[in-house]
Amino acid sequence: MAADRLSATFAALADPTRRAILAQLALGDASVSKLAEPFAMSLPAISKHLKVLERAGLITRGREAQWRPCRLEAKALKGVDDWLEDYRRLWEERFDRLEIYLSELQAEERKRGRRK
Amino acid sequence: MAADRLSATFAALADPTRRAILAQLALGDASVSKLAEPFAMSLPAISKHLKVLERAGLITRGREAQWRPCRLEAKALKGVDDWLEDYRRLWEERFDRLEIYLSELQAEERKRGRRK
Repeated sequence: MAADRLSATFAALADPTRRAILAQLALGDASVSKLAEPFAMSLPAISKHLKVLERAGLITRGREAQWRPCRLEAKALKGVDDWLEDYRRLWEERFDRLEIYLSELQAEERKRGRRK
Repeated sequence: MAADRLSATFAALADPTRRAILAQLALGDASVSKLAEPFAMSLPAISKHLKVLERAGLITRGREAQWRPCRLEAKALKGVDDWLEDYRRLWEERFDRLEIYLSELQAEERKRGRRK
C-alpha cells in the first residue's frame, strides 16, 4: 500500500461519524439515506463523509442511478492491519514481560502464605 | 479507548513523516535531534510532529531537561488493533471464499488434465 493511500486511510478513520458509517456497512451494503438515519445529520453532510471514505478506498458506491448503495471495502483496512504488524510484537513483548512479573509476584505471595 | 482518543490516534498516523518517526522509535528511544537526522526537516518542524504524536498518546517524552528522549507507546497502537478486530473477520471471510474458489478452479483443471 502506497504511503499516500495509507495516509488517506488513516485520515478517513480519524472521525467518529465515519467510523460509525463503516460499522453500519460491516452489516451490509446501504444507501445514503439509510446510512444517514442514525445520525442527526443532513444528507449533504453524510455525503461529504462518504466522499472521504470513497477517496480513501474504504468504501465503493454502486452504479445504479437512483439507489447508489455503499459497500465497505475491507481490504483497505487490511492495509492498516499490515502496517500494524511491525508494532504488534512490541506490545505483545510488553504484555509478556508484565505476565512474567505478575506470576513472579504471585509466586512470592504463595511463599509468604506458606510461611504464616 | 474513548472515541476522541482513537480519532486523535488515527489523525496522528495520517502522515508519512510521523509514521517514519514511530518506525524509528520502534528500534529504541531517541532524542529529537537523532529523530530529525533522516529527514530534511528543521528541529521545530520535527518538534511539531512529535507534539501531535504525544497528544495522541503514541509517544511520551522523558523529563531530562537537556535530552528529552522520545519513547514509543505501543499500547496506543493496540487501541487501533482492537478497533480493527471487528473488521478482521470481513477480509478473512473474503479470503476464505477466494481460496475455496481457487481450489475449485484447480480441481476443475485437474479433471480436464485427466481427460486429455
